[in-house]
Amino acid sequence: MNAYHQLVEHTKNITHFEHLSAICGWDQAAMMPAGGAEARAQAMAALQVHIHQLMNQPQLTEWFAQAEQAPLSAEQQAVLREMKRQWQQATVLPESLVQAQSIAGARCEHAWRQQKQDNDWAGFAANWEEVVKLSREEAQIRAAATGKTPYDAMLDLYEPGASTQALDSLFDDVKSWLPTLIDRVLEKQSHESVLLPRGNYPSETQKSLGLAVMKQLQFDFDHGRLDESTHPFCGGVPTDVRITTRYSETEFVQSLMGIVHETGHARYEQGLPKAYAGTPAGEARSMGIHESQSLFFEMQIGRNPLFINHLADLASQYFNAHNDPVFAKANLQKLYSRVSKDFIRVDADELTYPAHVILRYEIERDLINGVIEFRDVPELWDHKMQNYLGLSTQGNYRQGCMQDIHWTDGSFGYFPSYTLGAMYAAQFMAAMKKTIDVDGVIHSGDLTPIFTWLADNIWCQGSLLTTDELVKQATGETLNAEHFKAHLEKRYL
Amino acid sequence: MNAYHQLVEHTKNITHFEHLSAICGWDQAAMMPAGGAEARAQAMAALQVHIHQLMNQPQLTEWFAQAEQAPLSAEQQAVLREMKRQWQQATVLPESLVQAQSIAGARCEHAWRQQKQDNDWAGFAANWEEVVKLSREEAQIRAAATGKTPYDAMLDLYEPGASTQALDSLFDDVKSWLPTLIDRVLEKQSHESVLLPRGNYPSETQKSLGLAVMKQLQFDFDHGRLDESTHPFCGGVPTDVRITTRYSETEFVQSLMGIVHETGHARYEQGLPKAYAGTPAGEARSMGIHESQSLFFEMQIGRNPLFINHLADLASQYFNAHNDPVFAKANLQKLYSRVSKDFIRVDADELTYPAHVILRYEIERDLINGVIEFRDVPELWDHKMQNYLGLSTQGNYRQGCMQDIHWTDGSFGYFPSYTLGAMYAAQFMAAMKKTIDVDGVIHSGDLTPIFTWLADNIWCQGSLLTTDELVKQATGETLNAEHFKAHLEKRYL
Ligand SMILES: [Zn+2]
Ligand SMILES: [Zn+2]
Repeated sequence: MNAYHQLVEHTKNITHFEHLSAICGWDQAAMMPAGGAEARAQAMAALQVHIHQLMNQPQLTEWFAQAEQAPLSAEQQAVLREMKRQWQQATVLPESLVQAQSIAGARCEHAWRQQKQDNDWAGFAANWEEVVKLSREEAQIRAAATGKTPYDAMLDLYEPGASTQALDSLFDDVKSWLPTLIDRVLEKQSHESVLLPRGNYPSETQKSLGLAVMKQLQFDFDHGRLDESTHPFCGGVPTDVRITTRYSETEFVQSLMGIVHETGHARYEQGLPKAYAGTPAGEARSMGIHESQSLFFEMQIGRNPLFINHLADLASQYFNAHNDPVFAKANLQKLYSRVSKDFIRVDADELTYPAHVILRYEIERDLINGVIEFRDVPELWDHKMQNYLGLSTQGNYRQGCMQDIHWTDGSFGYFPSYTLGAMYAAQFMAAMKKTIDVDGVIHSGDLTPIFTWLADNIWCQGSLLTTDELVKQATGETLNAEHFKAHLEKRYL
Repeated sequence: MNAYHQLVEHTKNITHFEHLSAICGWDQAAMMPAGGAEARAQAMAALQVHIHQLMNQPQLTEWFAQAEQAPLSAEQQAVLREMKRQWQQATVLPESLVQAQSIAGARCEHAWRQQKQDNDWAGFAANWEEVVKLSREEAQIRAAATGKTPYDAMLDLYEPGASTQALDSLFDDVKSWLPTLIDRVLEKQSHESVLLPRGNYPSETQKSLGLAVMKQLQFDFDHGRLDESTHPFCGGVPTDVRITTRYSETEFVQSLMGIVHETGHARYEQGLPKAYAGTPAGEARSMGIHESQSLFFEMQIGRNPLFINHLADLASQYFNAHNDPVFAKANLQKLYSRVSKDFIRVDADELTYPAHVILRYEIERDLINGVIEFRDVPELWDHKMQNYLGLSTQGNYRQGCMQDIHWTDGSFGYFPSYTLGAMYAAQFMAAMKKTIDVDGVIHSGDLTPIFTWLADNIWCQGSLLTTDELVKQATGETLNAEHFKAHLEKRYL
């Protein structure tokens, strides 16, 4: 076996342990009783140490050196490039730091679930200080190894190729037109009336409806399932994708669209190239591209008025509400395009969402670069929230800086992916429309042509191309935020 | 860190990986969609290889030698004894044999699932011959290492301290009175009439009822949960115990008592000594003692007429069936004490169960010791089945020697634990009655005194004592099957 194949076999072995980590992580969020947390955190930490040790086997250095000299096909070169990137990212941190982060993150995240409900910033900060401290150590080590700034080195984990420079320029542009656009849309919508869902929508019925929508979106139930968790996510492995949602029995629209969103993530995973399973080339390209697929499902398909018509039919059928004006097509269309300035990112509409992301981006960028301290975050949050959305979060931590899970376990650098994803999704739709009558396809109810385009251009590419190459091959150009702006103006003005 | 503490830390690390294996194993049985099976099997195999490698680290030999010379407390000596036993059992087999067994066992078990349905003994025997051959090799290697007979060396894996000599004498005694007792009970019950559950008992309602019974049995829901699987089991880890059941919507009595049984396993796990968590001393004493706890819950509590009265109240409440004679206390008491001679062990009642176990014990003992050959098994099965239960299995392999999964992958030596567990349970109850008014406690509905006795005498002992020491300390004598006989006669005559 030559060095390249030894690397591939070694990487596949690591993937087996990441598989177990993904399933046990899903279990932690969706199944595990609270009393299991401490022992699970220790077991997961031991697993992370083992994965770290596998990544740090001394022979890998030699194998990479040999493989880079060997004659390889273009695909093999892509596999090698991604294996090396992951190897470098994984091996640069000392084992003691990896283990400390895993334990501190699990503890902080677990306690946060209650502290958030209690608006307990002091309790949270006591755990979070350690998480931030360890993440800064991580960022500095990564920065030293790559010649990037600390925050750019963290960004690279989620969005290879992204940089503060590019994001600052992208987001500054958004900040130049978004607040005005939001106000114009709010003014326009202030003249419309919408009926809100009121009443009792049992979780069981919502789940049945969600499963029906997943079926229409061609989710593969032989390779995945739907469950519940506090914070909806898409986990598991490509052969067994676990998506979750959260039901509120007083309304059904949020959970329903949440399921559409997670189904987008899931179909990307289910559509990844099986020939490269177990290697990084068989994995999702980046968090931004991952989010582009969920947001394609949610924003480009799910909130298209013609798709909402299908949702209205299904929902009124499942809730036996054919004569309920809440379920009327026009009303649901309005419900699914309402804009409001509000506190919670995960509940935010498409239009205000970038403001939530830019706020977090600016704070975490400065936090990781050491420009601000963890205790400054609530005040900065309040300040930016006032500026971007005109809302005060003073003393309101649960709806402010304690609302998201990401920071609780040190996932700094992740937030920009949401808005990058929204931009990529709009760009993919613009390109798709050159060859597909998208509205006609959505109206028909059989979305196969749309999924075939996504499968061919995005899903089955895995990480064989860089993000820029992927986007250029699929759309003819690299990221161009004009498609996003045009999409928002067309939908909301 | 001295050698003893190095061993403890190493063992705790192994336990972390066994934790992940337990959770992913539970997921495989209770949650995983079929399409996830192949990748999961590979991931689980990689995990087993890792655990095997951890057990085979060369420094362990030296650490054990050093630790055995060190001054240790009595508890530390118990921990060391159990760590060494597990280490020797895990490392004595050559890797080539372990691998051959894994392949042959998986092949035989997989094919058996269909062959059993097809009553295909010839097809099964073709695979099983290899499994038996490899298990005999295993038994001989274990025998050479321990100075035991081959079958005793296999028994030791599940029931440390058990021996053919002791089991022969125990089971010969049972055989001397059991067939007569069964016939007397059948004669007595032939005059009774019982109403069978007929109708529609929704799984959701059965689950709610099961949860209510688990609550009465003081299952700790902060450290465990109830789910569904084809084959009910108790899995997970002591801090997070996962029990499963299987619902049939045409009746509810089996699943309900199945939940009582698994709750017994679960409470043993939940009650294991936390001070020894992660070491073998913090684990269950043996398969027989584990089964003694599930059978204590099922046979000594669950089928006590006074407990069945509570079940009748709860069940008629959950199914809103207060006037249904099926749910009458006297009828449920009869339902839960019906005896019949039948083919299938897992469906057998308390009274005939030992006959099923003794038959299997005698066959696997002689098979592993080389006294009989694999091809002799169907005839021997038929012969013993005729003798013990008066049933012929000639040509009926699916309800005969092909009914159980245990032998398909070479788990020889496990079966005696079931009946040892029933005997220990009866003995524990006899001892408990010396200080506790058990019937009064059960009648009251607050079972706390019973659980306190079990927690103090069994659960919190973990594996600190040998089985004989544990039983003698709890009951004043080592295993005495007279308690079992007296229990059966009192209940059924
Ligand atoms: Zn998403
Ligand atoms: Zn059992």
